[in-house]
This record gives sequence, structure tokens and C-alpha cells, in this order.
Amino acid sequence: MKVVSIDQVEKKKVEMEGVKGAWKQLPLGSSDGAPVYSLRVFTVEAGGNTPFHSHPYEHMNYVIEGEGVIVDEYGNERPVKAGDFALVYPDEKHQYRNTSADRVFRMICGVPKEFE
Amino acid sequence: MKVVSIDQVEKKKVEMEGVKGAWKQLPLGSSDGAPVYSLRVFTVEAGGNTPFHSHPYEHMNYVIEGEGVIVDEYGNERPVKAGDFALVYPDEKHQYRNTSADRVFRMICGVPKEFE
Repeated sequence: MKVVSIDQVEKKKVEMEGVKGAWKQLPLGSSDGAPVYSLRVFTVEAGGNTPFHSHPYEHMNYVIEGEGVIVDEYGNERPVKAGDFALVYPDEKHQYRNTSADRVFRMICGVPKEFE
Repeated sequence: MKVVSIDQVEKKKVEMEGVKGAWKQLPLGSSDGAPVYSLRVFTVEAGGNTPFHSHPYEHMNYVIEGEGVIVDEYGNERPVKAGDFALVYPDEKHQYRNTSADRVFRMICGVPKEFE
């Protein structure tokens, strides 16, 4: 087994069009021998966001910390907070936004390991 | 997309040999259209534990709350606390124990949806 604290995992700034103030960690993934799925963690700074995009695989999300919204494919904003789970379906357009003025928004984002 | 707070998800007592004081929730799974993976949540009462067992699929864990140990296949105890991730490999014997005297231990446990 592998055990790791999120604080011990390298954090990389996400450089992608449409991203603002987001950082990525990969606590459990293919390099650890994960057979099927990878768990990433994204930290979005106050006022930041992930890209408004879609892709042919799903997201399995859990909000660890903070408050924000998920924008759905119609542009509607759904509030999310610590303790919430979200499933974004394959090819469904989506975006996470941190709506807090001063707190980070942090979530787990599970994907098939091929897309980690 | 589906969004749900863990507090809104039905909690069922785990009835299985070797389990003590554990409750299961299924916030995201096959009935939600999860394509590959399911995310369950287990809440283990103070002094409780999951079974010491193995199965042919992995666990992808994240500790939401509390403190405990994972027992590995050799019987060694590895401490885990909120913010820790763990990967239990297929066929690896394991057990979660809540080592706290008065607090719950709560974790996400991801598995392939066939085994949710």
C-alpha cells in the first residue's frame, strides 16, 4: 500500500488556456501502480477558476475545502462547498470557480489513469 | 452533472464479518451513471474497524475526518489522519481502525463500479 499526506505531494501550477490561479497535485496515480483510476487534487486561489471545457472522460470530485461553483454546460452556476461530491459526465462542459474573496477552493478530481 | 452533499446521502450500517461500528454511503456510483469508478464513504465509530480482508480490486482512499491506522498485510499499523491518501492494491490484505476514543474516522473509498 501507499500512504501519503496531501501536504507532502508536489504542487504544480496549471498552465492551460482559460485557467486562472490553479495548482495540481497527483497523490495517487499510475506511477504508484494505481490499476484503474487516479486521484488528483486541484487548489484554486481566491477568484481563480479551472477552464470552461469538456473532454471524453468523467470527473469524480470531492470538495475538501472552501466554497465555489461548478458552471454547467448551459452556463448555470451550481454552488459547491466542502463535503460535496460532484460527477461531471464525459463530454459535459464544466468549470470550477472559487467564489471566495480570500480562501482557497480545494477538491479531489478522479479520472481514469490514462488521463491523469 | 450530479452534485450532492455527503450529509444528504443515505447511511447504511455495514453488516459483514469482522466489522465493528462502520457505516457506508454511496454518494457517486453506477446508479448515477458513473462510467468507471464509484466513490463510497465509510464512517467508523470511535473504537470501530473495517474487516481485515483482501479482494481482487484496489481501494483509493482519502481520509476526510479523524485519525486511525491502516493495518497492512503483515499486521503493521500505519497511522492515517485527515488529509491523507492511501492506495490499497488488489489482493492486499488491509484493515482500517479508528484509534480515537471519541471521534469518528471518515474516509472516501473509491473502487471500480462493479464492486461498489
